[in-house]
Amino acid sequence: MHEATAPPAQVWKSSGRLADGREIIYFDESPGTGRAQVRDTRDLGAGADARPEPGIRWDPLVGEWVVIAAQRQGRTFLPPADQCPLCPSRPGQPTEIPAAGYDVVVFENRFPSLYGAMARTADAAGTAAAGAAAVTATAAEAAAAEAAADFAGTTPAGAGVLTARRPGIGRCEVVCFTSDHDSAFACLTPGRVRTVVAAWADRTAVLGAMSGVRQVFCFENKGEEIGVTLHHPHGQIYGFPFVTPRTAQMLGQAYAYARGGHGNLFDDMVASELSEGTRIVARNEHWTAFVPAAARWPYEVLLFPGRRVPDIPALDGDARSAFGDLYLDVLGRFDALFGSPPPYIAAWYQSPAGDSAASSEFGLHLRVMSVQRAPGKLKYLAGTESAMGVFINDIVPETAAQRLREAR
Amino acid sequence: MHEATAPPAQVWKSSGRLADGREIIYFDESPGTGRAQVRDTRDLGAGADARPEPGIRWDPLVGEWVVIAAQRQGRTFLPPADQCPLCPSRPGQPTEIPAAGYDVVVFENRFPSLYGAMARTADAAGTAAAGAAAVTATAAEAAAAEAAADFAGTTPAGAGVLTARRPGIGRCEVVCFTSDHDSAFACLTPGRVRTVVAAWADRTAVLGAMSGVRQVFCFENKGEEIGVTLHHPHGQIYGFPFVTPRTAQMLGQAYAYARGGHGNLFDDMVASELSEGTRIVARNEHWTAFVPAAARWPYEVLLFPGRRVPDIPALDGDARSAFGDLYLDVLGRFDALFGSPPPYIAAWYQSPAGDSAASSEFGLHLRVMSVQRAPGKLKYLAGTESAMGVFINDIVPETAAQRLREAR
Repeated sequence: MHEATAPPAQVWKSSGRLADGREIIYFDESPGTGRAQVRDTRDLGAGADARPEPGIRWDPLVGEWVVIAAQRQGRTFLPPADQCPLCPSRPGQPTEIPAAGYDVVVFENRFPSLYGAMARTADAAGTAAAGAAAVTATAAEAAAAEAAADFAGTTPAGAGVLTARRPGIGRCEVVCFTSDHDSAFACLTPGRVRTVVAAWADRTAVLGAMSGVRQVFCFENKGEEIGVTLHHPHGQIYGFPFVTPRTAQMLGQAYAYARGGHGNLFDDMVASELSEGTRIVARNEHWTAFVPAAARWPYEVLLFPGRRVPDIPALDGDARSAFGDLYLDVLGRFDALFGSPPPYIAAWYQSPAGDSAASSEFGLHLRVMSVQRAPGKLKYLAGTESAMGVFINDIVPETAAQRLREAR
Repeated sequence: MHEATAPPAQVWKSSGRLADGREIIYFDESPGTGRAQVRDTRDLGAGADARPEPGIRWDPLVGEWVVIAAQRQGRTFLPPADQCPLCPSRPGQPTEIPAAGYDVVVFENRFPSLYGAMARTADAAGTAAAGAAAVTATAAEAAAAEAAADFAGTTPAGAGVLTARRPGIGRCEVVCFTSDHDSAFACLTPGRVRTVVAAWADRTAVLGAMSGVRQVFCFENKGEEIGVTLHHPHGQIYGFPFVTPRTAQMLGQAYAYARGGHGNLFDDMVASELSEGTRIVARNEHWTAFVPAAARWPYEVLLFPGRRVPDIPALDGDARSAFGDLYLDVLGRFDALFGSPPPYIAAWYQSPAGDSAASSEFGLHLRVMSVQRAPGKLKYLAGTESAMGVFINDIVPETAAQRLREAR
């Protein structure tokens, strides 16, 4: 256990290992919290070796990878608040976080859909902790990581493959936004959001540099209505071994747009929204929030930085600091609109890792989608959406934007 | 109102109009039911003219059309059983079906996401009823249909379009599988399923011939858990003004597979499943049911006919008759597996209408997906699925197939 160099804007990062070898990383807003003295005293069993191996399988009819992750069926399901695994540890009640308190903390998911990704070298990941990972990885994980290193396409081997399978190499992390069990992202201070952004940026850089990881995805699922099994305010970070279908589609659109003699698709879309104005929800000096013209969800808002960047690590200090102001404003409007916090999905769209062509074209943005369409009424994904990919939105996007503008 | 020629296998089709001009089509298993004498006596107001116009909008970031359908917010939501709009009419309780009884009946949805598609000519649709539709359409519908006739691509106008909008021309129909409110598709007789297949075939042919319709989608959403607002056993039929994203993906995969020097993607996939055998759930002389190797849903079964056809109308009499035996068997296994009928989505994948290249390559199939992953536990589409298009399946497909094989 060690104290690493603090990233800019006063976040102190330190990392260690849980009892079963999983990595935990603290992002503290003040130094000298003594993380090095804290040990995980639980008996968690064999860890990775005991888990069935996850895998990814190729769907030849659609041309996408699907993750098969049987090991998750036993995951923790809505525990009582006094047994929350995301609260700090208390005497006699050890949790996933050995410390007695924390600001923002990230750790490897105990029930991961993907795992085994490792830093190529300690230098590549830029943290000594990643070096420790290589030491403690099992032989099976090492072999799988080696296999994954050879796997560099979104298609398995051209268009002729019916059934391809690969090990489910990747990484699934949990990020706790606050030690306060009863809080919510919408209740964080802008300063705390700045620390969360620092954690996202760090994990995007570290996971993106791991062997076998092609894309890093930071997101928050909020609300029992969409299957969230732990109420403590938290998000997730996935390192996928492939470029996700949605990202691949977006990149395809952006490349085609540029080839068609236009500028950048993301820049032009934001400029078009600013020019039209009817779907803008809120903005500040560094960010713009709007309902997209072709919104799929009843209340769906995109947040774009004013200066296009490919991913969270590329956001400058000003943009990182200004994000919280605008995002908290938008989340506050969601709460006000429904009279109580609605279930939502918040998802960061980032450029694939280590792909310079993509990085120069992709535009980082956050999409926050309310799963609610009216008080007590949810938006379900049924036949048209789930089977055919056709979204039917009951609320006109301009109306959604107006209601959000007026909700305070 | 008139009696049309009966399709093969003894189904008597007759059609008429509801009070607001919507079409209703009866598929009866015996002749002489006197449909011509039945009138809809309700006062339903102005019908189509009073509805806000639906529209489709282009999402430039993803390259897909999205349907904006604000007029659906007022739709009927879980009425008590004695006010079910899908039961036959009783004295003092008129419903959407004016008749006092029916076998299978189809009518235009009162709260459609898409509407206004019309037969190009009475001859093109092959039914005199379609001719009647052209006569009763409003001027606005006619203008919209004309605009739609010019709209023939999946992309609006090349790759350079940021924000395209079109009228939401199309057709949304409801199909009632039985007049018995408390029944379910799984409880139908094979003979009744044969009648439902005849209705699907008829509607696929009629809607596919309408101006502006590019693809016909027959499906059933089952269960309140996925937002079904009426319990009476029924499905839906959509005529989309574009090729759906999923279908476009499948066709792209099939064309690429053929260009790669292989045979037909659908044929080879089924042959591969039969050869491997571990994911076969059930089969008979004309149909095979299997869990796909890369299943996205906990319990997902594909039903393929033994002889590949592009759509339901192309199924021969033997395949139409044999479908019910196998599908009812699969649905029975779903019920047995969970101890009670689970929520599910059943979706027919058909070739786009009037596209001969697609028809020669596409393979019709039904996909039935349980939304349940264990008793009392649902599969939710959250961040990875809804935002990134990455499905994470908790149940290994071979295990799902084995459980379904053993469930009786």
